[in-house]
Amino acid sequence: MVKLKPRFKLWLETEDGYVFGPGSFKLLQGIQEKGNLKTIAEELKMSYRHAWGIIKEIEETLGKSILVTHRGGKVGGGGAELTQKGEELLEAYLKIKSDLNQMFSNFDFMEL
Amino acid sequence: MVKLKPRFKLWLETEDGYVFGPGSFKLLQGIQEKGNLKTIAEELKMSYRHAWGIIKEIEETLGKSILVTHRGGKVGGGGAELTQKGEELLEAYLKIKSDLNQMFSNFDFMEL
Repeated sequence: MVKLKPRFKLWLETEDGYVFGPGSFKLLQGIQEKGNLKTIAEELKMSYRHAWGIIKEIEETLGKSILVTHRGGKVGGGGAELTQKGEELLEAYLKIKSDLNQMFSNFDFMEL
Repeated sequence: MVKLKPRFKLWLETEDGYVFGPGSFKLLQGIQEKGNLKTIAEELKMSYRHAWGIIKEIEETLGKSILVTHRGGKVGGGGAELTQKGEELLEAYLKIKSDLNQMFSNFDFMEL
């Protein structure tokens, strides 16, 4: 018998198309945890500019701000945190992702 | 308010990795409906050789035959049909896909 495992990629769309997927999820989750865009960009091995580009693209598609930055004296620049809309976006994605993972655990023993 | 819609891509993996996704699903479903590989390959705008390649790759990864062909006198060559394992593979994918679509209908009115 061969064991099959289902896998998925999840993303969110507006009427205008793609807005939020696995990459942006990791980025926003990292910002929520670390409170700093530069730190998480480095961790995800992307440039600070690229990370900003992802944020700006989401904000443009949504027409809403998802991130606020704080200029500060700390080494590594000021912090960044999600706006309420940013939090809601992250939560929406996370909720569906969790439901999917939950559902997929039912298919863990599919054999052919 | 912006309306968000979740979208997904679903695929199946064995221990050795990818085996069956949206493209192979369409192909197998088409074979099941039409009983002919050439017809469905044309409909999916892929070459007959490419369609065969997909089938062979699945069979190699699974170590099982998923298609039988019949040589015949009909125009367009003999027919093709799924083996029992082919049917089971198609059904396994379809079941999860339906469950996902069902689940996603709950998220139809997500707004931000």
